[in-house]
Amino acid sequence: MLKIGIIGVGTVGQSVCQILEENKDIITARAGVEIKPMIGAVNNLSKKRDVNIKLTDNIDDILEDKDIDIVVELMGGIEEPYKVVKKALKNGKAVVTANKALLAYHRYELQDIAGDTAFEFEAAVAGGIPIITALREGLGANHIQSIKGIINGTCNYMLDKMIKEGIEYDIILKEAQDLGYAEADPTFDVGGFDAAHKLLILASLAYGIDAKPEDILIEGIDNIQKEDIEFAKEFNYSLKLLGITKKIGDKVELRVHTVLIPNSEMIAKIDGVMNGVSVVGDKVGETLYYGAGAGGDATASAVIANLIDIARKGKGSPMLGFTKSLEDGLSLVDIDDIETKYYLRLEVDDKSGVLAKIAQTLGDNNISIKTMLQKSASNNKANILLSTHTCKEKNIKDAIKDLENSKVVLSKPAMIRIEE
Amino acid sequence: MLKIGIIGVGTVGQSVCQILEENKDIITARAGVEIKPMIGAVNNLSKKRDVNIKLTDNIDDILEDKDIDIVVELMGGIEEPYKVVKKALKNGKAVVTANKALLAYHRYELQDIAGDTAFEFEAAVAGGIPIITALREGLGANHIQSIKGIINGTCNYMLDKMIKEGIEYDIILKEAQDLGYAEADPTFDVGGFDAAHKLLILASLAYGIDAKPEDILIEGIDNIQKEDIEFAKEFNYSLKLLGITKKIGDKVELRVHTVLIPNSEMIAKIDGVMNGVSVVGDKVGETLYYGAGAGGDATASAVIANLIDIARKGKGSPMLGFTKSLEDGLSLVDIDDIETKYYLRLEVDDKSGVLAKIAQTLGDNNISIKTMLQKSASNNKANILLSTHTCKEKNIKDAIKDLENSKVVLSKPAMIRIEE
Repeated sequence: MLKIGIIGVGTVGQSVCQILEENKDIITARAGVEIKPMIGAVNNLSKKRDVNIKLTDNIDDILEDKDIDIVVELMGGIEEPYKVVKKALKNGKAVVTANKALLAYHRYELQDIAGDTAFEFEAAVAGGIPIITALREGLGANHIQSIKGIINGTCNYMLDKMIKEGIEYDIILKEAQDLGYAEADPTFDVGGFDAAHKLLILASLAYGIDAKPEDILIEGIDNIQKEDIEFAKEFNYSLKLLGITKKIGDKVELRVHTVLIPNSEMIAKIDGVMNGVSVVGDKVGETLYYGAGAGGDATASAVIANLIDIARKGKGSPMLGFTKSLEDGLSLVDIDDIETKYYLRLEVDDKSGVLAKIAQTLGDNNISIKTMLQKSASNNKANILLSTHTCKEKNIKDAIKDLENSKVVLSKPAMIRIEE
Repeated sequence: MLKIGIIGVGTVGQSVCQILEENKDIITARAGVEIKPMIGAVNNLSKKRDVNIKLTDNIDDILEDKDIDIVVELMGGIEEPYKVVKKALKNGKAVVTANKALLAYHRYELQDIAGDTAFEFEAAVAGGIPIITALREGLGANHIQSIKGIINGTCNYMLDKMIKEGIEYDIILKEAQDLGYAEADPTFDVGGFDAAHKLLILASLAYGIDAKPEDILIEGIDNIQKEDIEFAKEFNYSLKLLGITKKIGDKVELRVHTVLIPNSEMIAKIDGVMNGVSVVGDKVGETLYYGAGAGGDATASAVIANLIDIARKGKGSPMLGFTKSLEDGLSLVDIDDIETKYYLRLEVDDKSGVLAKIAQTLGDNNISIKTMLQKSASNNKANILLSTHTCKEKNIKDAIKDLENSKVVLSKPAMIRIEE
């Protein structure tokens, strides 16, 4: 029997306990031994929880219990769980966590501390989708060329509703909050930070690269306007918040932002609150993984997959996929050096000469225009919607600054990157 | 160093050797040791092959070489490779195979013979997609409710072309043969047998059920006509060859046939020669896995993933996912007892009373009609295209027989099952 202590018995923790009980027969047949939740640590003992395990408000009752084989960390936060899992490892216990923020900041230290002790985290990225296993075990033969992930269901739900039903940002945010998809303070989701945490974990498995959230480009979905949605529809694009990592030579790109993607791409077809991750390997080509990225049972499914892994083989693969640092020292692409295609929306006076001035400014910044569309607005104003061929982030930023300085645009231009 | 012997050095075998060389650095960093192909066994030594390993035409040069750690079986066939891998296991060598036919017939015997020796087969189902790992490791917490797989790229390519470009079966089959997607004798692919072999492997991982190809319903794609394609388009269905397994109570359904699926379902969106597998777990909900199902490099990617697995942890999980038989003895659903929805195309005389007669015959067989569409053809004939609500396979077969006996239909009715 494998004895489990759970730190943090909220939605996911309760699901873990319930599934281990409800699906005990099949889990035992797969794992080879019974996996039994024994004790859970909570802040508030008086709150009712739907579990049949002993509860404590003293984490050490788990960390120092010699009978506990595996600690499941579901407490949330960063520094507090970091202390807790370090102590668990020091006491010889395997650890399973669903905590992406912890890993976004401390995954390499934890890999060192864990050593030969199992430390697993399938639930930390894309909930129930076994993307960690796919990337670390299934695609090991490949140099990973790119990963593009819809790894925040809240944002995907909101963008999907905006584009399909024309609902505006503020209204759909309220709806997402009412449905429990978004928090009262939604910044962590809609600002792209949650996706960034998950992206950093995926990039470690792909490239062995250490980076922190503050090292990378993170933008959210809160600047999307009706006109952008119309452009997307007109040119057969979907609008998605993607976490993107790519390797170009010995440089790695890491960025989270809204993108326009052609509807024909598989990842554009992932609707609603679902998650999906597209991984391109140099040998296997594109593979894609789709499923529920959140929710108690889906997340618990991934936590228990790790418990079964540990029951079957103890420490299996190296925690972050590599037994040693790769020789070709990789570095991050500077944000200004990112190359992609762009969509711009410019509010202008509806008068002659304006288009020429815009084309001139873009040309001066080495940006060539792919499509351009002028839409008349009220009060003799117009919106210029244009897409560019591939250019550098720095050039697009400079061009936007030049357009603002030259007063040819009446308000701050909107910019969305295009992935195709 | 882990030393590999490869039996069968065709397209996949050559890719395995080339990738192990080309991606050696990253594979070694992931595996922890170098994985080195040493020797390959071939039938015809005079045929040129693009590999840097010793070649032999005597398989025993591999099976009896004490230095070889892992045998990679890529020879094809059933009984001959069965003998070969048994001998490899007996000689203490781990085995990796891409051979679905071998596993469709002998997977349980091989599991017994392998015992504590690693026997892996990621490449046997859906080529480069790590679906074996996903199902065996990633979804272990779940009772699997259903698997629906597009696991034959040739059929998907052909059906996709037929539906999107209106190309007829014989012409697209010729094209698929010219492109190398279909064999000169295409029966194994278009008849559904290849998909059936793969489905049986997936069903073992999901349910621990032993079944052979001859135990299950297998139909191919060769009976699809232009009218069926038109119906699919009109009602927003895709046409796919699916391998389907479902558990209902203590019965397991196993079947391969063409289906109509609503375009809105993720698996309907898998186009061209690609593969995709949708797995529904009781806790995780639907997850889907997409990628290249064939091709030398994609298949070799999966073979090498298994080599890395073995390098990392020797024998990891139980070969077929379970350490013991499940207690609730499962049995196969009798084909006649399968329940689903159906599409029927009936060629009739374009005269009054015919529709009533058809409705009467279906009603007499407990089949209720969902949609019905009459299309006039030439010579005072018409096609009746109809879909039913859920009913039993036996009822639809009886109804078809009754329609044929009553002479109300002018030719053999066409029937396609609907999955939604």
